[in-house]
Amino acid sequence: MPSQAPGPVDPARLREVLDGSWAEVRKAHRDHLDTRFLPVYGETGDQARERITRLLTQLPVELGVASAFPTEYGGRSDVGGSIVASEMLAQVDMSLMVKAGVQWGLFGGAVMALGTRRHHDAHLRDIIAARTFGCFAMTETGHGSDVQQLRTTCTYDPQTQTFDLHTPHEAARKDYIGNAARDGRMAVVFAQLTTRGRRHGVHAWLVPIRDAQGNPMPGVTIGDAGPKAGLLGVDNGRLTFDHVRVPRDMLLDRYGQVAPDGTYSSPIENDSRRFFTMLGTLVRGRVSVGGAASAATKSALTIAVRYGDIRRQFSAPDTDREVPLNDYLAHQRKLLPALATTYALHFAQAELVAALSAVQGGDGPLDEHRQRELESRAAGLKAAQTWHATRTIQMCREACGGAGYLAENRLPSLKADTDVFTTFEGDNTVLLQLVAKGLLTGYRDGFGSLDGWGRASFVAEQVREMVLERTAARSVIQQLVSAVPGRDDEVAVTDRGWQLKAFEDRENHLLDGAIRRLRNGATVKKDRPFDIFNDVQDHVLTVATAHTDRVTLEAFVAAIESTADPAVQALLSRVCDLYALSVIEANKGWFLEHARLTPARSKAITAVVNDLLKELRPEMRTLVDGFAVPDTWLHCAMLREEPGRQEAMAAEDGAAAAQAVPA
Amino acid sequence: MPSQAPGPVDPARLREVLDGSWAEVRKAHRDHLDTRFLPVYGETGDQARERITRLLTQLPVELGVASAFPTEYGGRSDVGGSIVASEMLAQVDMSLMVKAGVQWGLFGGAVMALGTRRHHDAHLRDIIAARTFGCFAMTETGHGSDVQQLRTTCTYDPQTQTFDLHTPHEAARKDYIGNAARDGRMAVVFAQLTTRGRRHGVHAWLVPIRDAQGNPMPGVTIGDAGPKAGLLGVDNGRLTFDHVRVPRDMLLDRYGQVAPDGTYSSPIENDSRRFFTMLGTLVRGRVSVGGAASAATKSALTIAVRYGDIRRQFSAPDTDREVPLNDYLAHQRKLLPALATTYALHFAQAELVAALSAVQGGDGPLDEHRQRELESRAAGLKAAQTWHATRTIQMCREACGGAGYLAENRLPSLKADTDVFTTFEGDNTVLLQLVAKGLLTGYRDGFGSLDGWGRASFVAEQVREMVLERTAARSVIQQLVSAVPGRDDEVAVTDRGWQLKAFEDRENHLLDGAIRRLRNGATVKKDRPFDIFNDVQDHVLTVATAHTDRVTLEAFVAAIESTADPAVQALLSRVCDLYALSVIEANKGWFLEHARLTPARSKAITAVVNDLLKELRPEMRTLVDGFAVPDTWLHCAMLREEPGRQEAMAAEDGAAAAQAVPA
Repeated sequence: MPSQAPGPVDPARLREVLDGSWAEVRKAHRDHLDTRFLPVYGETGDQARERITRLLTQLPVELGVASAFPTEYGGRSDVGGSIVASEMLAQVDMSLMVKAGVQWGLFGGAVMALGTRRHHDAHLRDIIAARTFGCFAMTETGHGSDVQQLRTTCTYDPQTQTFDLHTPHEAARKDYIGNAARDGRMAVVFAQLTTRGRRHGVHAWLVPIRDAQGNPMPGVTIGDAGPKAGLLGVDNGRLTFDHVRVPRDMLLDRYGQVAPDGTYSSPIENDSRRFFTMLGTLVRGRVSVGGAASAATKSALTIAVRYGDIRRQFSAPDTDREVPLNDYLAHQRKLLPALATTYALHFAQAELVAALSAVQGGDGPLDEHRQRELESRAAGLKAAQTWHATRTIQMCREACGGAGYLAENRLPSLKADTDVFTTFEGDNTVLLQLVAKGLLTGYRDGFGSLDGWGRASFVAEQVREMVLERTAARSVIQQLVSAVPGRDDEVAVTDRGWQLKAFEDRENHLLDGAIRRLRNGATVKKDRPFDIFNDVQDHVLTVATAHTDRVTLEAFVAAIESTADPAVQALLSRVCDLYALSVIEANKGWFLEHARLTPARSKAITAVVNDLLKELRPEMRTLVDGFAVPDTWLHCAMLREEPGRQEAMAAEDGAAAAQAVPA
Repeated sequence: MPSQAPGPVDPARLREVLDGSWAEVRKAHRDHLDTRFLPVYGETGDQARERITRLLTQLPVELGVASAFPTEYGGRSDVGGSIVASEMLAQVDMSLMVKAGVQWGLFGGAVMALGTRRHHDAHLRDIIAARTFGCFAMTETGHGSDVQQLRTTCTYDPQTQTFDLHTPHEAARKDYIGNAARDGRMAVVFAQLTTRGRRHGVHAWLVPIRDAQGNPMPGVTIGDAGPKAGLLGVDNGRLTFDHVRVPRDMLLDRYGQVAPDGTYSSPIENDSRRFFTMLGTLVRGRVSVGGAASAATKSALTIAVRYGDIRRQFSAPDTDREVPLNDYLAHQRKLLPALATTYALHFAQAELVAALSAVQGGDGPLDEHRQRELESRAAGLKAAQTWHATRTIQMCREACGGAGYLAENRLPSLKADTDVFTTFEGDNTVLLQLVAKGLLTGYRDGFGSLDGWGRASFVAEQVREMVLERTAARSVIQQLVSAVPGRDDEVAVTDRGWQLKAFEDRENHLLDGAIRRLRNGATVKKDRPFDIFNDVQDHVLTVATAHTDRVTLEAFVAAIESTADPAVQALLSRVCDLYALSVIEANKGWFLEHARLTPARSKAITAVVNDLLKELRPEMRTLVDGFAVPDTWLHCAMLREEPGRQEAMAAEDGAAAAQAVPA
């Protein structure tokens, strides 16, 4: 592990490391998406929707947003490329990314994953070419997180060989559905399948919702979700079905078939397991959202860091030269740990995309264990990245003062557009429960369930047998950890092995504690089964966070290990120190409570973090330049070289000199 | 201190305690401000500006928003009433509150505080009646926090007996100025006064910026700040002056006069001291913003708590009845500590408004020490309340899932409109430095300075002599603290005296440490004067936070002490426990590092907090009902009793029963 001070780093070398495996997809987007694709500030909702729909049809498909589809339909059979493409779109305009995600990821992805060849042949080419706009109609007004309990019904009638799709009451209407309010012609609708008097759980149908003239189909009522906090360009709407007749062959029947006589069959017998297998193929949406959140975070940090270099306020003592904001410790304390975390999450996301590509990219049967692990990783990182985005963009907005509140400086739309990410494609708190449940059960069973622990009472009786699964560069990390002597206190807090061990130790101890508490609870709270889980819910969520922290640090360490350029490697190593120590500092209460840190060592960590801030201050600009967000994409008035701005700066210096002789 | 479990509480009794001294102002607003005054979701910027301007002229002045003005001009000489009125407006529509704050607080307030009788006689009646709209033109593009360094110049010419008001370069233009883009006819403009070749620092002039037809006056260029994250109804703009002639008598000359021949005189000799005296009279704006932030926080919590009671997700084990969100520990962990902090800040704000009323309400000369203390309190509480609002409204938005992202459910506008509060009327980080500096110097000198520590190098050489000033109910608090035995560990963490002592101890220890580090720095960093302060900036900001926490807890304790209704008192006492222990839990790293908590006791605090959450769960609705936000003011679609919603709920129950027999 390099430990020398970082030498001068060429941002282009840093960019290469960050761009990683799908560098050409990133480059193609940077080269081709010009100012036409940028957000327009202050437009109305109607204008935004019109513009985004138009841009979606103009988006060159060869950039890669539809590349997850098989080559035979016009895709590239490249799952990873589609995720990276969507991350790049997110950096240009988040409405565009979400609209694309609805069309190609959710709608097209569902037709692909849940349908069979006849659906693919009939629809995929039109979907890829954005000739057919579609919706992913899963969420209902009354059920978002608990999708297994959806209330929409779809009942097979062998006489007519059609399904009867129905919304039984207002809470069962489909809600927040992208593409519904304006553009959608079809929808993948999730509903409870009943045939021959028996229910078989949630399935999906391909349902026309508008005719060629754009009028709602008979029995379909379409509403508009109305103005939102952000994402004005996405036409979210509401769908209600009044006994709509759906032909038998519109059931997306990869995981469940209904014969003409109504006989049900499925390759997966258990309703719940089938449901989570169906959901599992849709993990890509979650990975995309995490990547999009990080893309927006990078834009916000680039703006705040560049502004903090040119914005000066208050004079230094004994001089009239005003101090750039980035020179203040308090400003560094805001920006640099967030920047370090963004780097860490970038590498964790890159590793996740590679894993997704490996697990889902091939044609062979899915490895269920690896798929479960992938879902867990995606859930944890989606939560981490979207919360980090919410916090960091907010902080960047504040770090730019009043200027950060003006639409022309981009930060307001970055904040408003990403705000929904913490609760869509899985509410973050529910996702962390899913992660925790996977850890508690060792991915063995029922793991995919999004339930609120209610139906998970088996957990408490289980023995944890799972070995801590290392994520990347296993042997290197093992070596680093093993090299730490028994007496931790004698190791520098910048020792990578010690940091890794601290993260791992925290995760393990928290997990063991949660299991112990659940077991004890199962004994003493037999008559209050809800309380068994609810009483430790905060603890259990912390397990999931600690796990995600560990996975993230390991990905960062692995990325540093495989970096060839020594200057870049040295810089990344310092950034990794800052990330690791920021996490430990933020959780020092836990480390002290559990005697993992002495008070003296805990205080020392704060001092080391401050030293790192000082050391990294000159690299702030390089670190954001490494993200390689094109200047035009920042779309930020205060960073543009306007006519007169140079003169103003020069005049400022003159004024500073003049004021040296006040009355 | 009451320690029994809270009995049933009548929300009306709770409301009385919260409404406090200006209850009739609150009641008048609740009674008179009907749906006409509510925000309109999804309107354009132009529509919002037109509507808010119209409402401002329709706002019954007798409600109290202009009551700080003297009775002879149509006010009520009631400073406190005007602050409370503005808090109530904030709960109806934040644009309306900010526009009112610009018109009556900043613009009218500056004419009142900085002008003299001839200005008052000529303008106050028209200002109060909203016949003359005006701006407060202080901030410039290049200088916001460091207003002492404004670049706009105003130079006296004895020949014409006029001032020459000039914007020397782009960075000196007035920016973010409310009422400028559309409505303002006049502006109080802050600029550097020069007369007879000597500069005398920042002064203010009353300057016409538009003629009767609404066209800019000669030499005045007016720009529009354009779309913002929120506050669409406020017409923020930019003003540039090209050698504008301003008559001599338009100088607001209470603190500095220029004779016809250009001779300058002032009752306050020192430029800097005069400047901060001028600013000091404007502390009301800061108090209003803090109150407005809390008002929005109360609305957001009311929405989230009420939604959390009706929104159910996931079934409890062994039942098909779904669980209300508020029953989940993780949800309580989000909402209840925020609710407790909102209560604490409410009482701190009430105490601050009373102090403001006492210090500035009379006709006598200002007590400078009390004024300084007031400014410090206002600065700390403004920062605490606005950051709490930003965090809490964000959390409430997330706690309501996708519904929280829809404009129709109010949370998006609450978030967007309050977002600027953390950086306007004083950037929070700069304000905390001001608080810290007051503590370090014991309010003795130069305290009001907003500088970045640069000119404060005297601090390090000073001996701290200040006695910890208790805020309220001094003797009671002293008794509680004194009653804590020497061995803290033996006292329950719910002991109020122990809690008070912990807060006080933390503040003192942090303050002593900061002084020690500054002194040491002054010795060893003589050649790097900037670093002396910058290296401890994080520590110093923590001092200010700890101080504000202590002030807030003491206000809460004093309020409980003076509550007559025993059931209300018992409930508030539990809420106070939750506030105090949440703060200690959030800072447990510090308490452990400094041996103020043993590891075992630290862990116990987390358990006690969880117990308090369980105990307060049944009181959540009562606690938000105590805020008494009228149902119509919430303006939240998902909480309205729409036709069909009751049936939907009933149908839900039916569905839950039906699904008990799946295939």
